[in-house]
Amino acid sequence: MADVIRVSLDVLRELAQASLTSRGVSDEQANAIADCVVAAEGDNCPSHGLFRLPGYLKSVISGKVDPVALPKVTEIAPSVLHVDVRSGFAPLGHVVARAPAIAMARRQGVCAVAFVNSHHFSALWAELEPIAEEGIAGLAFRAGVSRVAPAGGVRPVFGTNPIGFAWPRNGRSPLVVDFATSAIARGEIQLRQKAGQQIPLDWAVDVDGNPTTDPARGLAGAQLTFGGYKGSALALMIELLAGPLVGDLLSFEALRADNGDGGPPRGGELLLLLDPSRFRRGEGQDPVLHAENLFALMAEQPGVRLPSERRYVARRAAVEHGVDISRKALLEVAALAGDAVANRIKALLDSPEPVER
Amino acid sequence: MADVIRVSLDVLRELAQASLTSRGVSDEQANAIADCVVAAEGDNCPSHGLFRLPGYLKSVISGKVDPVALPKVTEIAPSVLHVDVRSGFAPLGHVVARAPAIAMARRQGVCAVAFVNSHHFSALWAELEPIAEEGIAGLAFRAGVSRVAPAGGVRPVFGTNPIGFAWPRNGRSPLVVDFATSAIARGEIQLRQKAGQQIPLDWAVDVDGNPTTDPARGLAGAQLTFGGYKGSALALMIELLAGPLVGDLLSFEALRADNGDGGPPRGGELLLLLDPSRFRRGEGQDPVLHAENLFALMAEQPGVRLPSERRYVARRAAVEHGVDISRKALLEVAALAGDAVANRIKALLDSPEPVER
Repeated sequence: MADVIRVSLDVLRELAQASLTSRGVSDEQANAIADCVVAAEGDNCPSHGLFRLPGYLKSVISGKVDPVALPKVTEIAPSVLHVDVRSGFAPLGHVVARAPAIAMARRQGVCAVAFVNSHHFSALWAELEPIAEEGIAGLAFRAGVSRVAPAGGVRPVFGTNPIGFAWPRNGRSPLVVDFATSAIARGEIQLRQKAGQQIPLDWAVDVDGNPTTDPARGLAGAQLTFGGYKGSALALMIELLAGPLVGDLLSFEALRADNGDGGPPRGGELLLLLDPSRFRRGEGQDPVLHAENLFALMAEQPGVRLPSERRYVARRAAVEHGVDISRKALLEVAALAGDAVANRIKALLDSPEPVER
Repeated sequence: MADVIRVSLDVLRELAQASLTSRGVSDEQANAIADCVVAAEGDNCPSHGLFRLPGYLKSVISGKVDPVALPKVTEIAPSVLHVDVRSGFAPLGHVVARAPAIAMARRQGVCAVAFVNSHHFSALWAELEPIAEEGIAGLAFRAGVSRVAPAGGVRPVFGTNPIGFAWPRNGRSPLVVDFATSAIARGEIQLRQKAGQQIPLDWAVDVDGNPTTDPARGLAGAQLTFGGYKGSALALMIELLAGPLVGDLLSFEALRADNGDGGPPRGGELLLLLDPSRFRRGEGQDPVLHAENLFALMAEQPGVRLPSERRYVARRAAVEHGVDISRKALLEVAALAGDAVANRIKALLDSPEPVER
């Protein structure tokens, strides 16, 4: 039997949604999470896909996250939205804040969105892309739990602290950049550990601060940032913007506050929205059209790819042909979901739906 | 005779100012530039210090820059300031925009400042520090002239595209982060070339796209970003924010537009100002005080240094004891400045002022 089965995005979405509601997650929260999970699978970013669903479920079962929380959006300054996710999952916070944030950016030119009390397990690109689809450029900053040592250090301080950026394109999918400031995702080190493989020396240090090729020692010690002291400076910036500025925990505080259930920790996030049309001067070029000159120049070099291109290619294929999902991942979801969903997952595994390849 | 002489910051500032006005630079422009140059020398960042003065002078002599331009500040959206530097040097633009930008950030919570038509040869930290001294956090993005290849590419597209970030601290100098997204400053490769030294393989590629240890081949080819594809994504983001968004040139357009006089090219810049006090909720912690928890945790690790610490240490020493300036650099300034200043520089070189060590 193959390790994976081919599933259409619709079926995957329905299963994700049902598994969440089977544990008491509200329809609104479950919808928002299912969208993120399925978008990640569709874009061939499995590290933010179905793989995350067990964590979501565990944090509901443990009581860490409020699965029926309704985020509260408040204008706390003319260009600042405050989004209290009230111990719910982050995705619904983004869904609820999106329209008022875009309206504020259009009205003011720029707008900051301060998310607090949210539990985050998703990818920043999924939060920024819908904003850029509306013609608005966006930046996102998120802290995490302490896993990453600052440059020169040996003990974790920063989270994997990702940064995201989205830029709108006329009649095309937006450019979206999204990367962790750790040298590598923690999950990648865990995968190497499971596979009995070594890790490169610039991914992590052991508890004594020595570079290590042993995944277990690296996980026990501290991850490193990408790009040396520059990556570390970026992680520090993100820590300040997504923690103290918005009024939420620093990564080391989030680690202490977490119950270790394997689900998403609590934390804050900062979005900055910029409306290019509000920067345009009467006689000046349209910023969105002007940017195409850059993309055209980059496209002249065969080895250069725009950051989001690979995802969009995967997405088109996934919409048409579905995606391969590991049986193991589906069984993990089944083990945590309610009986009805668990049975449907098992039935699907026994007789996969026919999908055009 | 020593290669350097010790000069007090006051004397250095006066010489910088006088050399600029001797070539027709307005007092306002010359003041703003002299402040940047002297701040860089005082903070032991000579790459943005006196070393830059010949470039400023050359671009006045060539007619590329308008040395008497007065920047024009316009509110183009409730949270967007537009600063047309009118072909002048960037520093005066920052001086003129600072107070209205800070006021806008306090009023709106966040504010964007779009600088255009400015010629920039200074460091972002010098622009952000005075903003953070007023309790406002700031981000800065600046493009340049094409020198840096995107990840996977072999030909220059991006400038060295620096990013800056400043965070206010109560009763202490602000935290200020400032780094180029190129692996290394172009000047550093030029210095290696002059010294007949090799460069590391991850600094640049030759014209065929091969990594090279030869500075000359690297300068003829393309520099690389720091941190691989992540650094490249950051450079791309900065290119879009500091070029098309604000309404100024992309780095490849700036390279084409430049007359090659060795002075600062034309370009744009984006500043984002965030007022932490406008993010604070009634019951919540003061963001600026909260951030100290992070700095305290970082200080527990002996090898970890906050990004701006080294500069502040240098500054205290420089204020007390002056700085060492290379005779050659002073002679280069003398060769481009008016006779009176040139004579004063030569007199200083003949009998340096006594400075307490």
